[in-house]
Amino acid sequence: MDLSPALQALSARADTALARALPSDDQHPLELHRAMRYAVLGGGKRLRPLLVYASGAVFSATPEKLDAIAAAVEIIHAYSLVHDDLPAMDDDSLRRGRPTCHIVFGEAMAILAGDALQALAFQVLANDRALGVDAATHLDMLRTLSLACGSHGMAGGQAFDLAAVGKKLDASELERMHVYKTGALIRASVRLGALAAGCKDMAVLSALETYGHSIGLAFQIRDDLLDIEADTEQLGKTAGKDALANKPTYPAILGVDASRAELVALTTRALESIETLGANAEPLRDLARFVASRLS
Amino acid sequence: MDLSPALQALSARADTALARALPSDDQHPLELHRAMRYAVLGGGKRLRPLLVYASGAVFSATPEKLDAIAAAVEIIHAYSLVHDDLPAMDDDSLRRGRPTCHIVFGEAMAILAGDALQALAFQVLANDRALGVDAATHLDMLRTLSLACGSHGMAGGQAFDLAAVGKKLDASELERMHVYKTGALIRASVRLGALAAGCKDMAVLSALETYGHSIGLAFQIRDDLLDIEADTEQLGKTAGKDALANKPTYPAILGVDASRAELVALTTRALESIETLGANAEPLRDLARFVASRLS
Repeated sequence: MDLSPALQALSARADTALARALPSDDQHPLELHRAMRYAVLGGGKRLRPLLVYASGAVFSATPEKLDAIAAAVEIIHAYSLVHDDLPAMDDDSLRRGRPTCHIVFGEAMAILAGDALQALAFQVLANDRALGVDAATHLDMLRTLSLACGSHGMAGGQAFDLAAVGKKLDASELERMHVYKTGALIRASVRLGALAAGCKDMAVLSALETYGHSIGLAFQIRDDLLDIEADTEQLGKTAGKDALANKPTYPAILGVDASRAELVALTTRALESIETLGANAEPLRDLARFVASRLS
Repeated sequence: MDLSPALQALSARADTALARALPSDDQHPLELHRAMRYAVLGGGKRLRPLLVYASGAVFSATPEKLDAIAAAVEIIHAYSLVHDDLPAMDDDSLRRGRPTCHIVFGEAMAILAGDALQALAFQVLANDRALGVDAATHLDMLRTLSLACGSHGMAGGQAFDLAAVGKKLDASELERMHVYKTGALIRASVRLGALAAGCKDMAVLSALETYGHSIGLAFQIRDDLLDIEADTEQLGKTAGKDALANKPTYPAILGVDASRAELVALTTRALESIETLGANAEPLRDLARFVASRLS
Protein backbone atom coordinates (compact mmCIF):
# COMPACT_ATOMS: atom_id res chain seq x y z
CA MET A 1 0.00 0.00 0.00
CA ASP A 2 1.22 3.47 -0.89
CA LEU A 3 0.44 6.78 0.75
CA SER A 4 -2.69 8.55 -0.54
CA PRO A 5 -2.01 11.47 -2.92
CA ALA A 6 -2.96 13.93 -0.15
CA LEU A 7 -0.47 12.36 2.25
CA GLN A 8 2.17 12.19 -0.48
CA ALA A 9 1.75 15.93 -0.98
CA LEU A 10 2.21 16.48 2.77
CA SER A 11 5.30 14.28 2.73
CA ALA A 12 6.77 16.50 0.00
CA ARG A 13 5.74 19.51 2.05
CA ALA A 14 7.70 18.10 5.00
CA ASP A 15 10.77 17.81 2.76
CA THR A 16 10.48 21.49 1.93
CA ALA A 17 10.06 22.40 5.59
CA LEU A 18 13.12 20.32 6.45
CA ALA A 19 15.27 21.88 3.74
CA ARG A 20 14.32 25.28 5.13
CA ALA A 21 14.88 24.34 8.76
CA LEU A 22 18.39 22.99 8.16
CA PRO A 23 21.41 25.28 7.96
CA SER A 24 22.44 25.74 4.31
CA ASP A 25 25.62 23.93 3.35
CA ASP A 26 27.47 27.12 2.45
CA GLN A 27 27.49 28.08 6.14
CA HIS A 28 30.45 27.18 8.35
CA PRO A 29 31.26 24.62 9.58
CA LEU A 30 30.67 23.35 6.03
CA GLU A 31 31.27 19.65 6.53
CA LEU A 32 29.00 19.47 9.56
CA HIS A 33 26.17 21.22 7.75
CA ARG A 34 26.62 18.93 4.75
CA ALA A 35 26.46 15.89 6.99
CA MET A 36 23.33 17.21 8.71
CA ARG A 37 21.58 17.86 5.39
CA TYR A 38 22.68 14.49 4.02
CA ALA A 39 21.26 12.74 7.06
CA VAL A 40 17.89 14.47 6.94
CA LEU A 41 17.21 15.12 3.27
CA GLY A 42 17.88 11.61 1.97
CA GLY A 43 14.26 10.64 1.47
CA GLY A 44 12.21 8.53 3.83
CA LYS A 45 8.48 8.27 4.32
CA ARG A 46 8.28 11.23 6.69
CA LEU A 47 5.84 9.30 8.87
CA ARG A 48 6.36 11.51 11.91
CA PRO A 49 5.77 14.79 10.03
CA LEU A 50 2.69 13.21 8.47
CA LEU A 51 1.41 12.38 11.95
CA VAL A 52 1.92 16.00 12.98
CA TYR A 53 -0.01 17.28 9.95
CA ALA A 54 -2.75 14.64 10.29
CA SER A 55 -3.16 15.18 14.01
CA GLY A 56 -3.28 18.94 13.61
CA ALA A 57 -5.84 18.56 10.81
CA VAL A 58 -8.26 16.93 13.27
CA PHE A 59 -8.56 20.36 14.89
CA SER A 60 -8.38 22.23 11.57
CA ALA A 61 -4.78 23.44 11.90
CA THR A 62 -3.33 24.38 8.52
CA PRO A 63 -0.12 22.73 7.30
CA GLU A 64 1.56 26.19 7.34
CA LYS A 65 1.13 26.31 11.10
CA LEU A 66 2.61 22.84 11.53
CA ASP A 67 5.66 22.94 9.24
CA ALA A 68 8.25 23.69 11.92
CA ILE A 69 6.91 21.01 14.26
CA ALA A 70 6.88 18.51 11.40
CA ALA A 71 10.50 19.41 10.70
CA ALA A 72 11.49 19.16 14.36
CA VAL A 73 10.22 15.60 14.86
CA GLU A 74 11.80 14.39 11.61
CA ILE A 75 15.11 16.00 12.54
CA ILE A 76 15.04 14.04 15.80
CA HIS A 77 14.24 10.86 13.89
CA ALA A 78 17.07 11.49 11.41
CA TYR A 79 19.57 12.11 14.21
CA SER A 80 18.57 8.83 15.86
CA LEU A 81 19.16 6.95 12.62
CA VAL A 82 22.62 8.47 12.19
CA HIS A 83 23.63 7.38 15.68
CA ASP A 84 21.93 3.97 15.41
CA ASP A 85 23.87 3.23 12.23
CA LEU A 86 27.28 3.94 13.82
CA PRO A 87 29.82 1.10 13.96
CA ALA A 88 29.56 0.97 17.77
CA MET A 89 25.76 0.65 17.51
CA ASP A 90 24.06 -1.27 14.67
CA ASP A 91 27.02 -0.83 12.31
CA ASP A 92 24.92 -0.35 9.20
CA SER A 93 26.30 0.96 5.94
CA LEU A 94 23.07 1.37 3.98
CA ARG A 95 20.05 3.55 4.80
CA ARG A 96 17.27 4.65 2.46
CA GLY A 97 19.25 3.16 -0.42
CA ARG A 98 22.33 5.30 0.23
CA PRO A 99 25.55 4.92 2.23
CA THR A 100 24.96 5.87 5.87
CA CYS A 101 26.20 9.18 7.24
CA HIS A 102 29.37 7.81 8.87
CA ILE A 103 30.31 5.99 5.65
CA VAL A 104 30.21 9.28 3.74
CA PHE A 105 31.45 11.74 6.38
CA GLY A 106 33.37 9.57 8.84
CA GLU A 107 32.41 8.44 12.28
CA ALA A 108 33.37 11.56 14.20
CA MET A 109 31.39 13.84 11.89
CA ALA A 110 28.39 11.50 12.04
CA ILE A 111 28.39 11.63 15.84
CA LEU A 112 28.54 15.43 15.69
CA ALA A 113 25.88 15.68 12.99
CA GLY A 114 23.52 13.66 15.18
CA ASP A 115 24.32 15.82 18.19
CA ALA A 116 23.79 19.04 16.26
CA LEU A 117 20.54 17.73 14.75
CA GLN A 118 19.12 17.02 18.18
CA ALA A 119 19.89 20.59 19.26
CA LEU A 120 18.46 21.91 15.99
CA ALA A 121 15.14 20.17 16.57
CA PHE A 122 14.71 21.97 19.90
CA GLN A 123 15.82 25.22 18.32
CA VAL A 124 13.34 24.87 15.45
CA LEU A 125 10.51 24.13 17.85
CA ALA A 126 11.47 26.86 20.33
CA ASN A 127 11.87 29.41 17.52
CA ASP A 128 8.61 28.60 15.78
CA ARG A 129 6.91 31.96 15.22
CA ALA A 130 4.20 30.62 12.88
CA LEU A 131 2.82 28.44 15.64
CA GLY A 132 0.52 31.00 17.19
CA VAL A 133 -0.14 29.11 20.42
CA ASP A 134 0.19 30.67 23.84
CA ALA A 135 3.66 30.47 25.39
CA ALA A 136 2.49 27.97 28.03
CA THR A 137 1.37 25.54 25.32
CA HIS A 138 4.59 26.17 23.45
CA LEU A 139 6.52 25.18 26.57
CA ASP A 140 4.36 22.07 26.93
CA MET A 141 5.35 21.15 23.39
CA LEU A 142 9.04 21.49 24.22
CA ARG A 143 8.52 19.31 27.28
CA THR A 144 6.75 16.74 25.11
CA LEU A 145 9.60 16.62 22.63
CA SER A 146 12.36 16.45 25.24
CA LEU A 147 10.63 13.62 27.12
CA ALA A 148 10.21 11.65 23.90
CA CYS A 149 13.92 11.93 23.10
CA GLY A 150 15.45 11.11 26.46
CA SER A 151 16.20 8.11 28.61
CA HIS A 152 12.49 7.49 29.21
CA GLY A 153 11.88 7.75 25.48
CA MET A 154 13.83 7.11 22.32
CA ALA A 155 17.35 6.97 23.80
CA GLY A 156 16.08 4.68 26.54
CA GLY A 157 14.58 2.37 23.93
CA GLN A 158 17.89 2.17 22.15
CA ALA A 159 19.51 1.22 25.47
CA PHE A 160 16.95 -1.57 25.95
CA ASP A 161 17.77 -2.65 22.40
CA LEU A 162 21.51 -2.76 23.12
CA ALA A 163 20.92 -4.78 26.26
CA ALA A 164 18.70 -7.21 24.34
CA VAL A 165 21.12 -8.32 21.61
CA GLY A 166 21.85 -12.01 22.03
CA LYS A 167 19.34 -12.34 24.89
CA LYS A 168 15.96 -13.99 24.86
CA LEU A 169 13.28 -11.36 25.50
CA ASP A 170 9.67 -12.19 26.22
CA ALA A 171 6.87 -10.41 24.41
CA SER A 172 6.39 -7.79 27.13
CA GLU A 173 10.10 -6.89 27.20
CA LEU A 174 10.07 -6.60 23.42
CA GLU A 175 7.02 -4.34 23.60
CA ARG A 176 8.62 -2.16 26.26
CA MET A 177 11.69 -1.70 24.07
CA HIS A 178 9.59 -0.52 21.14
CA VAL A 179 7.24 1.61 23.21
CA TYR A 180 10.37 3.57 24.10
CA LYS A 181 12.49 3.25 20.99
CA THR A 182 10.10 4.15 18.17
CA GLY A 183 6.84 4.62 20.08
CA ALA A 184 7.86 7.64 22.12
CA LEU A 185 8.58 9.92 19.15
CA ILE A 186 5.53 8.67 17.24
CA ARG A 187 3.26 9.41 20.21
CA ALA A 188 4.94 12.80 20.64
CA SER A 189 4.37 13.64 16.96
CA VAL A 190 0.63 12.97 17.31
CA ARG A 191 0.45 14.97 20.54
CA LEU A 192 2.44 17.90 19.15
CA GLY A 193 0.11 18.25 16.16
CA ALA A 194 -2.89 18.36 18.48
CA LEU A 195 -1.29 20.81 20.93
CA ALA A 196 -0.26 23.10 18.09
CA ALA A 197 -3.83 23.06 16.85
CA GLY A 198 -5.06 24.24 20.23
CA CYS A 199 -6.47 20.96 21.51
CA LYS A 200 -6.65 21.06 25.29
CA ASP A 201 -9.26 18.33 25.76
CA MET A 202 -7.59 15.73 28.00
CA ALA A 203 -9.87 12.91 26.83
CA VAL A 204 -9.03 13.61 23.19
CA LEU A 205 -5.31 13.88 23.96
CA SER A 206 -5.55 10.56 25.75
CA ALA A 207 -7.35 8.96 22.77
CA LEU A 208 -4.58 10.27 20.52
CA GLU A 209 -2.02 8.78 22.92
CA THR A 210 -3.69 5.38 22.48
CA TYR A 211 -3.69 5.89 18.72
CA GLY A 212 0.01 6.77 18.74
CA HIS A 213 0.89 3.90 21.06
CA SER A 214 -0.93 1.42 18.82
CA ILE A 215 0.46 2.55 15.49
CA GLY A 216 3.92 2.82 17.01
CA LEU A 217 3.89 -0.87 17.88
CA ALA A 218 2.15 -1.73 14.61
CA PHE A 219 4.93 0.11 12.76
CA GLN A 220 7.56 -2.02 14.48
CA ILE A 221 5.79 -5.33 13.83
CA ARG A 222 5.44 -4.38 10.17
CA ASP A 223 9.14 -3.48 10.18
CA ASP A 224 10.08 -6.87 11.61
CA LEU A 225 7.86 -8.68 9.10
CA LEU A 226 9.32 -6.71 6.21
CA ASP A 227 12.83 -7.58 7.37
CA ILE A 228 12.11 -11.26 6.69
CA GLU A 229 9.72 -10.82 3.74
CA ALA A 230 11.31 -8.08 1.63
CA ASP A 231 14.69 -7.77 -0.03
CA THR A 232 17.38 -5.15 0.44
CA GLU A 233 16.60 -3.23 -2.72
CA GLN A 234 12.96 -2.84 -1.78
CA LEU A 235 13.77 -1.77 1.78
CA GLY A 236 16.64 0.57 0.96
CA LYS A 237 18.40 -0.90 3.97
CA THR A 238 19.99 -4.26 4.62
CA ALA A 239 17.27 -6.96 4.72
CA GLY A 240 17.47 -10.01 6.97
CA LYS A 241 19.80 -8.11 9.26
CA ASP A 242 17.77 -8.59 12.44
CA ALA A 243 18.02 -12.37 12.29
CA LEU A 244 21.72 -12.21 11.43
CA ALA A 245 22.38 -9.87 14.34
CA ASN A 246 20.38 -12.17 16.60
CA LYS A 247 18.04 -9.28 17.39
CA PRO A 248 14.78 -9.99 19.15
CA THR A 249 11.87 -9.44 16.75
CA TYR A 250 8.13 -10.05 16.84
CA PRO A 251 8.27 -12.92 14.31
CA ALA A 252 11.10 -14.54 16.30
CA ILE A 253 9.26 -14.27 19.61
CA LEU A 254 5.57 -14.57 18.65
CA GLY A 255 5.90 -16.39 15.32
CA VAL A 256 4.93 -14.91 11.95
CA ASP A 257 1.21 -15.66 12.13
CA ALA A 258 0.76 -14.31 15.64
CA SER A 259 2.76 -11.22 14.65
CA ARG A 260 0.40 -10.60 11.73
CA ALA A 261 -2.60 -11.04 14.01
CA GLU A 262 -1.13 -8.60 16.53
CA LEU A 263 -0.55 -6.09 13.74
CA VAL A 264 -4.22 -6.30 12.78
CA ALA A 265 -5.33 -5.98 16.41
CA LEU A 266 -3.18 -2.90 16.99
CA THR A 267 -4.42 -1.25 13.82
CA THR A 268 -8.01 -1.91 14.85
CA ARG A 269 -7.28 -0.44 18.26
CA ALA A 270 -5.71 2.65 16.69
CA LEU A 271 -8.76 3.18 14.47
CA GLU A 272 -11.20 2.63 17.34
CA SER A 273 -9.41 5.09 19.58
CA ILE A 274 -10.10 7.94 17.14
CA GLU A 275 -13.52 6.74 15.99
CA THR A 276 -15.35 9.69 17.51
CA LEU A 277 -13.10 12.34 16.00
CA GLY A 278 -15.14 12.70 12.81
CA ALA A 279 -14.20 13.26 9.20
CA ASN A 280 -11.22 15.49 10.01
CA ALA A 281 -9.44 12.44 11.44
CA GLU A 282 -9.47 10.64 8.08
CA PRO A 283 -5.75 11.36 7.41
CA LEU A 284 -4.89 9.79 10.79
CA ARG A 285 -6.94 6.73 9.78
CA ASP A 286 -5.17 6.56 6.41
CA LEU A 287 -1.84 6.64 8.22
CA ALA A 288 -2.86 3.79 10.54
CA ARG A 289 -3.78 1.68 7.51
CA PHE A 290 -0.58 2.66 5.73
CA VAL A 291 1.59 1.73 8.71
CA ALA A 292 0.00 -1.74 8.82
CA SER A 293 0.40 -2.54 5.14
CA ARG A 294 3.37 -0.58 3.84
CA LEU A 295 5.75 -2.43 1.53
CA SER A 296 8.96 -0.69 2.58
CA MET B 1 44.05 29.95 42.63
CA ASP B 2 41.11 28.11 44.16
CA LEU B 3 37.45 29.05 44.15
CA SER B 4 36.33 31.33 46.97
CA PRO B 5 34.44 29.57 49.78
CA ALA B 6 31.17 31.11 48.55
CA LEU B 7 31.73 29.78 45.04
CA GLN B 8 32.81 26.41 46.42
CA ALA B 9 29.50 26.23 48.27
CA LEU B 10 27.65 27.01 45.05
CA SER B 11 29.65 24.35 43.23
CA ALA B 12 28.52 21.80 45.84
CA ARG B 13 24.98 23.14 45.44
CA ALA B 14 25.22 22.45 41.69
CA ASP B 15 26.23 18.87 42.46
CA THR B 16 23.09 18.45 44.54
CA ALA B 17 20.94 19.98 41.81
CA LEU B 18 22.52 17.65 39.25
CA ALA B 19 22.00 14.54 41.38
CA ARG B 20 18.33 15.53 41.68
CA ALA B 21 17.90 16.34 37.99
CA LEU B 22 19.30 13.02 36.80
CA PRO B 23 17.16 9.87 36.68
CA SER B 24 18.02 7.62 39.64
CA ASP B 25 19.99 4.52 38.74
CA ASP B 26 17.29 2.14 39.94
CA GLN B 27 15.09 3.26 37.03
CA HIS B 28 15.09 1.36 33.75
CA PRO B 29 17.02 1.29 31.52
CA LEU B 30 19.47 0.78 34.39
CA GLU B 31 22.74 0.79 32.48
CA LEU B 32 21.88 3.96 30.60
CA HIS B 33 20.95 5.80 33.78
CA ARG B 34 24.14 4.59 35.46
CA ALA B 35 26.19 5.85 32.53
CA MET B 36 24.41 9.21 32.60
CA ARG B 37 25.02 9.64 36.32
CA TYR B 38 28.64 8.52 35.98
CA ALA B 39 29.21 11.07 33.24
CA VAL B 40 27.71 13.98 35.14
CA LEU B 41 28.44 13.30 38.81
CA GLY B 42 32.15 12.63 38.50
CA GLY B 43 33.34 15.94 39.87
CA GLY B 44 34.47 18.89 37.84
CA LYS B 45 34.63 22.57 38.65
CA ARG B 46 31.02 23.24 37.67
CA LEU B 47 32.09 26.48 36.00
CA ARG B 48 28.92 26.78 33.91
CA PRO B 49 26.55 26.34 36.87
CA LEU B 50 28.66 28.86 38.80
CA LEU B 51 28.21 31.33 35.95
CA VAL B 52 24.45 30.80 36.10
CA TYR B 53 24.39 31.43 39.86
CA ALA B 54 26.78 34.39 39.63
CA SER B 55 24.94 36.00 36.74
CA GLY B 56 21.57 35.54 38.41
CA ALA B 57 22.99 37.02 41.61
CA VAL B 58 23.69 40.31 39.79
CA PHE B 59 19.91 40.76 39.67
CA SER B 60 19.35 39.26 43.12
CA ALA B 61 18.02 35.89 41.98
CA THR B 62 18.32 33.27 44.70
CA PRO B 63 20.25 30.03 44.05
CA GLU B 64 16.96 28.10 44.59
CA LYS B 65 15.51 29.76 41.52
CA LEU B 66 18.58 28.91 39.44
CA ASP B 67 19.23 25.28 40.37
CA ALA B 68 17.52 23.69 37.38
CA ILE B 69 19.22 26.03 34.91
CA ALA B 70 22.57 25.36 36.56
CA ALA B 71 21.91 21.64 36.20
CA ALA B 72 20.81 21.98 32.56
CA VAL B 73 23.98 23.73 31.37
CA GLU B 74 26.24 21.30 33.21
CA ILE B 75 24.34 18.33 31.78
CA ILE B 76 25.01 19.71 28.29
CA HIS B 77 28.68 20.16 29.18
CA ALA B 78 28.91 16.61 30.52
CA TYR B 79 27.27 15.16 27.42
CA SER B 80 29.76 17.01 25.22
CA LEU B 81 32.68 15.57 27.20
CA VAL B 82 31.34 12.02 26.85
CA HIS B 83 31.10 12.38 23.07
CA ASP B 84 34.42 14.25 22.75
CA ASP B 85 36.20 11.45 24.57
CA LEU B 86 34.89 8.71 22.22
CA PRO B 87 37.45 6.71 20.22
CA ALA B 88 36.21 8.27 16.95
CA MET B 89 36.68 11.75 18.42
CA ASP B 90 39.53 12.59 20.85
CA ASP B 91 39.92 8.97 22.01
CA ASP B 92 40.61 9.82 25.62
CA SER B 93 40.52 7.28 28.41
CA LEU B 94 40.90 9.58 31.41
CA ARG B 95 38.66 12.45 32.52
CA ARG B 96 38.49 14.13 35.92
CA GLY B 97 40.88 11.46 37.19
CA ARG B 98 38.57 8.56 36.27
CA PRO B 99 38.14 6.28 33.26
CA THR B 100 35.97 7.96 30.61
CA CYS B 101 32.37 6.91 30.11
CA HIS B 102 33.01 4.65 27.10
CA ILE B 103 35.84 2.88 28.94
CA VAL B 104 33.46 1.96 31.76
CA PHE B 105 30.18 1.44 29.86
CA GLY B 106 31.29 0.72 26.31
CA GLU B 107 31.14 2.91 23.26
CA ALA B 108 27.51 2.33 22.31
CA MET B 109 26.26 3.13 25.81
CA ALA B 110 28.45 6.24 25.95
CA ILE B 111 26.96 7.52 22.69
CA LEU B 112 23.46 6.92 24.06
CA ALA B 113 24.25 8.45 27.44
CA GLY B 114 25.41 11.61 25.68
CA ASP B 115 22.30 11.66 23.52
CA ALA B 116 20.00 11.15 26.49
CA LEU B 117 21.82 13.81 28.52
CA GLN B 118 21.29 16.39 25.79
CA ALA B 119 17.55 15.64 25.79
CA LEU B 120 17.52 15.72 29.59
CA ALA B 121 19.00 19.21 29.68
CA PHE B 122 16.15 20.55 27.56
CA GLN B 123 13.65 18.62 29.65
CA VAL B 124 15.05 20.00 32.91
CA LEU B 125 14.95 23.54 31.57
CA ALA B 126 11.48 23.19 29.99
CA ASN B 127 10.10 21.58 33.16
CA ASP B 128 11.54 24.11 35.56
CA ARG B 129 8.65 25.15 37.82
CA ALA B 130 10.79 27.03 40.35
CA LEU B 131 11.86 29.50 37.69
CA GLY B 132 8.95 31.88 38.04
CA VAL B 133 9.59 33.80 34.82
CA ASP B 134 6.90 34.50 32.26
CA ALA B 135 6.47 31.80 29.61
CA ALA B 136 7.89 34.06 26.86
CA THR B 137 11.15 34.46 28.80
CA HIS B 138 11.15 30.74 29.52
CA LEU B 139 10.94 30.11 25.76
CA ASP B 140 13.75 32.60 25.16
CA MET B 141 15.85 30.56 27.57
CA LEU B 142 15.17 27.36 25.65
CA ARG B 143 16.13 29.13 22.44
CA THR B 144 19.33 30.33 24.08
CA LEU B 145 20.28 26.83 25.19
CA SER B 146 19.45 25.17 21.87
CA LEU B 147 21.45 27.73 19.89
CA ALA B 148 24.44 27.25 22.17
CA CYS B 149 24.38 23.48 21.63
CA GLY B 150 23.93 23.26 17.89
CA SER B 151 25.95 23.64 14.73
CA HIS B 152 26.38 27.38 15.32
CA GLY B 153 27.46 26.64 18.87
CA MET B 154 29.17 23.82 20.71
CA ALA B 155 28.70 21.05 18.12
CA GLY B 156 29.89 23.43 15.40
CA GLY B 157 33.01 24.19 17.40
CA GLN B 158 33.75 20.52 17.73
CA ALA B 159 33.44 20.24 13.93
CA PHE B 160 35.92 23.10 13.49
CA ASP B 161 38.18 21.25 15.91
CA LEU B 162 37.96 18.01 13.90
CA ALA B 163 38.74 19.84 10.71
CA ALA B 164 41.73 21.53 12.34
CA VAL B 165 43.70 18.47 13.46
CA GLY B 166 46.99 18.34 11.60
CA LYS B 167 46.32 21.70 9.90
CA LYS B 168 47.94 25.03 10.54
CA LEU B 169 45.31 27.45 11.86
CA ASP B 170 45.88 31.15 12.23
CA ALA B 171 44.92 32.96 15.43
CA SER B 172 41.52 34.05 14.10
CA GLU B 173 40.57 30.51 13.03
CA LEU B 174 41.66 29.22 16.43
CA GLU B 175 39.55 31.88 18.12
CA ARG B 176 36.52 31.04 15.99
CA MET B 177 36.81 27.39 16.95
CA HIS B 178 36.81 28.21 20.65
CA VAL B 179 34.11 30.89 20.41
CA TYR B 180 31.90 28.05 19.20
CA LYS B 181 33.28 25.05 21.04
CA THR B 182 33.49 26.23 24.64
CA GLY B 183 32.43 29.86 24.29
CA ALA B 184 28.85 29.27 23.20
CA LEU B 185 27.80 27.35 26.30
CA ILE B 186 29.69 29.68 28.62
CA ARG B 187 27.97 32.72 27.08
CA ALA B 188 24.64 30.92 27.28
CA SER B 189 25.18 30.13 30.96
CA VAL B 190 25.76 33.79 31.75
CA ARG B 191 22.74 34.86 29.69
CA LEU B 192 20.47 32.20 31.20
CA GLY B 193 21.23 33.32 34.74
CA ALA B 194 20.38 36.90 33.83
CA LEU B 195 17.18 35.98 31.96
CA ALA B 196 16.04 33.79 34.84
CA ALA B 197 16.60 36.72 37.19
CA GLY B 198 14.31 38.88 35.08
CA CYS B 199 16.94 40.99 33.35
CA LYS B 200 15.49 42.43 30.16
CA ASP B 201 17.94 45.32 29.74
CA MET B 202 19.54 44.80 26.32
CA ALA B 203 22.62 46.84 27.19
CA VAL B 204 23.25 44.76 30.29
CA LEU B 205 22.65 41.50 28.41
CA SER B 206 25.12 42.70 25.80
CA ALA B 207 27.71 43.54 28.48
CA LEU B 208 27.23 40.05 29.90
CA GLU B 209 27.71 38.64 26.40
CA THR B 210 31.08 40.41 26.21
CA TYR B 211 31.95 39.10 29.65
CA GLY B 212 31.02 35.53 28.62
CA HIS B 213 32.87 35.82 25.32
CA SER B 214 36.02 37.04 27.07
CA ILE B 215 36.13 34.49 29.86
CA GLY B 216 35.27 31.73 27.38
CA LEU B 217 38.41 32.48 25.40
CA ALA B 218 40.42 33.07 28.57
CA PHE B 219 39.30 29.66 29.80
CA GLN B 220 40.63 28.03 26.66
CA ILE B 221 43.97 29.81 26.72
CA ARG B 222 44.40 28.79 30.36
CA ASP B 223 43.50 25.23 29.34
CA ASP B 224 46.12 25.22 26.61
CA LEU B 225 48.75 26.65 28.95
CA LEU B 226 47.92 24.08 31.64
CA ASP B 227 48.26 21.30 29.07
CA ILE B 228 51.93 22.14 28.65
CA GLU B 229 52.63 23.33 32.23
CA ALA B 230 50.80 20.81 34.41
CA ASP B 231 51.05 17.06 34.78
CA THR B 232 48.39 14.41 34.29
CA GLU B 233 47.74 13.85 37.99
CA GLN B 234 47.11 17.52 38.61
CA LEU B 235 44.81 17.87 35.59
CA GLY B 236 42.87 14.63 36.05
CA LYS B 237 43.13 14.18 32.30
CA THR B 238 46.00 13.30 30.04
CA ALA B 239 48.52 16.18 30.00
CA GLY B 240 50.57 17.08 26.94
CA LYS B 241 47.94 15.49 24.75
CA ASP B 242 47.29 18.52 22.55
CA ALA B 243 50.88 18.66 21.32
CA LEU B 244 50.98 14.90 20.80
CA ALA B 245 47.73 15.01 18.82
CA ASN B 246 49.10 17.91 16.79
CA LYS B 247 46.15 20.03 17.92
CA PRO B 248 46.27 23.75 17.32
CA THR B 249 46.67 25.59 20.62
CA TYR B 250 47.28 29.17 21.68
CA PRO B 251 50.85 28.50 22.84
CA ALA B 252 51.60 26.72 19.54
CA ILE B 253 50.21 29.56 17.43
CA LEU B 254 50.91 32.69 19.47
CA GLY B 255 53.75 31.43 21.64
CA VAL B 256 53.61 31.05 25.41
CA ASP B 257 54.32 34.66 26.34
CA ALA B 258 51.80 36.12 23.90
CA SER B 259 49.24 33.57 25.09
CA ARG B 260 49.74 34.71 28.68
CA ALA B 261 49.41 38.35 27.63
CA GLU B 262 46.20 37.54 25.74
CA LEU B 263 44.84 35.78 28.81
CA VAL B 264 45.45 38.92 30.88
CA ALA B 265 43.88 41.14 28.21
CA LEU B 266 40.76 38.99 27.99
CA THR B 267 40.38 38.90 31.76
CA THR B 268 40.70 42.67 31.91
CA ARG B 269 38.08 42.99 29.19
CA ALA B 270 35.74 40.65 31.05
CA LEU B 271 36.09 42.68 34.24
CA GLU B 272 35.64 46.01 32.44
CA SER B 273 32.51 44.84 30.68
CA ILE B 274 30.73 44.32 34.01
CA GLU B 275 32.34 47.26 35.82
CA THR B 276 29.07 49.16 36.16
CA LEU B 277 27.09 46.25 37.58
CA GLY B 278 27.94 47.00 41.18
CA ALA B 279 28.69 44.85 44.20
CA ASN B 280 26.26 42.10 43.18
CA ALA B 281 28.54 41.27 40.27
CA GLU B 282 31.41 40.35 42.58
CA PRO B 283 30.92 36.58 42.10
CA LEU B 284 31.17 37.09 38.31
CA ARG B 285 34.41 39.00 38.88
CA ASP B 286 35.74 36.24 41.13
CA LEU B 287 34.97 33.73 38.38
CA ALA B 288 36.81 35.77 35.76
CA ARG B 289 39.88 35.84 38.00
CA PHE B 290 39.54 32.14 38.76
CA VAL B 291 39.30 31.22 35.05
CA ALA B 292 42.52 33.13 34.35
CA SER B 293 44.59 31.61 37.13
CA ARG B 294 43.17 28.15 37.88
CA LEU B 295 45.67 25.35 38.42
CA SER B 296 43.60 22.51 36.95
